[in-house]
Amino acid sequence: MAESRQLGIRPSLTVLKDNPIEKIARYARERTDVIPMWFGESDKKTPDFICDAAMTALHQGRVLYPGTCGMPEFRKALAAYHNRIYDLPLPAERFFAMSSGMVAIMMSFQMLCEPGDEVVAPAPIWPNIPGAATLCGARVRTVPMHLDETGWHLNVQQLFDATTEKTRAIFINSPCNPNGWMMSHREMHHVLDFAREKGLWIISDEVYGRQTFDTPRAPSFLDITDPDDRLIVINSFSKSWSMTGWRLGWMVAPEYMTEPIQKTVQFNNMGTSEFLQCAGIAALERGEDFLADEGRRHKISRDIICSALREIPQVTFTDPPSTFYVFFRVLGCEDSVALAKRLIDEVGVGLAPGAAFGEAGEGCLRLCCAVDPSKAEVAADLLVRALR
Amino acid sequence: MAESRQLGIRPSLTVLKDNPIEKIARYARERTDVIPMWFGESDKKTPDFICDAAMTALHQGRVLYPGTCGMPEFRKALAAYHNRIYDLPLPAERFFAMSSGMVAIMMSFQMLCEPGDEVVAPAPIWPNIPGAATLCGARVRTVPMHLDETGWHLNVQQLFDATTEKTRAIFINSPCNPNGWMMSHREMHHVLDFAREKGLWIISDEVYGRQTFDTPRAPSFLDITDPDDRLIVINSFSKSWSMTGWRLGWMVAPEYMTEPIQKTVQFNNMGTSEFLQCAGIAALERGEDFLADEGRRHKISRDIICSALREIPQVTFTDPPSTFYVFFRVLGCEDSVALAKRLIDEVGVGLAPGAAFGEAGEGCLRLCCAVDPSKAEVAADLLVRALR
Repeated sequence: MAESRQLGIRPSLTVLKDNPIEKIARYARERTDVIPMWFGESDKKTPDFICDAAMTALHQGRVLYPGTCGMPEFRKALAAYHNRIYDLPLPAERFFAMSSGMVAIMMSFQMLCEPGDEVVAPAPIWPNIPGAATLCGARVRTVPMHLDETGWHLNVQQLFDATTEKTRAIFINSPCNPNGWMMSHREMHHVLDFAREKGLWIISDEVYGRQTFDTPRAPSFLDITDPDDRLIVINSFSKSWSMTGWRLGWMVAPEYMTEPIQKTVQFNNMGTSEFLQCAGIAALERGEDFLADEGRRHKISRDIICSALREIPQVTFTDPPSTFYVFFRVLGCEDSVALAKRLIDEVGVGLAPGAAFGEAGEGCLRLCCAVDPSKAEVAADLLVRALR
Repeated sequence: MAESRQLGIRPSLTVLKDNPIEKIARYARERTDVIPMWFGESDKKTPDFICDAAMTALHQGRVLYPGTCGMPEFRKALAAYHNRIYDLPLPAERFFAMSSGMVAIMMSFQMLCEPGDEVVAPAPIWPNIPGAATLCGARVRTVPMHLDETGWHLNVQQLFDATTEKTRAIFINSPCNPNGWMMSHREMHHVLDFAREKGLWIISDEVYGRQTFDTPRAPSFLDITDPDDRLIVINSFSKSWSMTGWRLGWMVAPEYMTEPIQKTVQFNNMGTSEFLQCAGIAALERGEDFLADEGRRHKISRDIICSALREIPQVTFTDPPSTFYVFFRVLGCEDSVALAKRLIDEVGVGLAPGAAFGEAGEGCLRLCCAVDPSKAEVAADLLVRALR
């Protein structure tokens, strides 16, 4: 508080913690010999055909103010993609271009939450979700998941019990960053029933929906909801098409949210560049081979990492069914930031500290396995050496 | 309120009005014969050398997560540009990449204002400024400028009188969208003295700083402030380099704001694409010829429009010294949205209604003169026909 008064910034920004993953990445910045597995980012660059689509659009002069909802052809391409991959015949008008999944999260909070309002969510949770809520003057109230020998589990009743009269939305990130947990359709039905009864929104962050190891895609709230249900689905090009640096995503919402979304986009960033949307269309229409190749590669690397971790007695985890992360607990670890620093210092492997994902993540580490198997082999050996 | 309860969105979003400029553009969407002068956008596309820089960066694979402050070479290019054009030797560390000037405005409010806090600003004012504050739960309190035969004027004492204990910042947009008003260094000193005395921030939106008709650039708060003064300067590539659709801008802030900015960027959009920043570097380093050509063109078109408007007895205005807008009052007009619609219907000229810029703008229209003189001639004739 003293610090914020001194700087003249708002106190709640001072209280807000920096993302510890960023802190670790900055810690290792000087070293060139670290294997970076801290960010949720593939080591494969964006495929050429996607870059080419952006360049063609630049040549065509698609450099003027974009509309606030997204280009009609972009929204149509999203509708066609959902029809093809999700078997969901949704109208193009339910899709909205967003300048990243993160922006879509922020805008969801801005549309639903007055200052003082609350959102409930399972944890561990990506720190940017509560961070965005805090910037809105709102608050994310988390409910811990539990790890047993069959995987991570959420008690949805605990989630319902955490709602208060201030709650506006239930935030579900499934597949879950960091722990790979997937919500089942059965659980989704419970959540939907509860949300309908209480008039709550469901914000469903499905950016890892295609990063599934044994099924073509994860269950989606879109599978079980009606067009007018209070559902906002967040999605992004970052993970599926290696487009993290493009800042391109989308939102699926009821059509009656068009005007609120238009206003919120208008007063945040005026819309998403058209030439980026053209790249997105290429990804949606011609990206399946890339997705399939990446999926196979991630699975091999995941298996290499998981096999190695199983050799370490003080490590507990289960093979993640989805995302491209392996999230594991190190028994006896009470400071995951310190442990992440030690791994950088001792063996040059850069992992994300579990503390980044809230109390429920402390004592854990997250490793991104969206890397070549050869790199995964090296990292696995080094981790065994350091942790055993 | 009933509407928001029905939709389940926050009441303050329902109350928030859609930008009337967007409304007019949508009104004319079906017509292909309208001369569009409603948006703040040149009819010249982004120069090729800027697009080429983005393409080269895409080829180089600059498609990964960007840092939160901007690339070191982008920040250095901004520092060099300010040294060259503004004669200000500022360190690169005071510059921060932003995904548009609009995003920089939103983030300024998010950093400085708790819900309930206030910002004071002169009006007429671009509607997105109070819109962004509303989304933050804050409020912009406006003080009207006045038009006499020598131009628009602000009584800075009225601005000071409008501050309360809730005020966190003084927002100055000079050169001013829509009316072309420029704050003098003398007035800036008054504002700075007052802000220092009260511990307030100055948010200086200088996106039209290079759109001056008779001087190389407008006065900047950077000219008169110390490095640690509570000053945030907002700037953008949109207006000077015809890059409206790129969503690229920057912020100049004291170095002690680095961590607050990092957090705010992190929790909003994770940063600005590197290949866009590469395009920005090209604009900064090689864009002066384009700026000079555009400036000459805008001036010719402004003069054509102003000459025509002077023929109309019920129109009052003065030649704007800056921006690329002509903002004029139509005597007897009490509904500028209706008048803008009539101009579309009757003569096919699309202007921005003054009501978009708050009460102080009602009865006025804004015309963007960043067009070819031939187009300005046609529009001028049509306006004279419709308004005389």
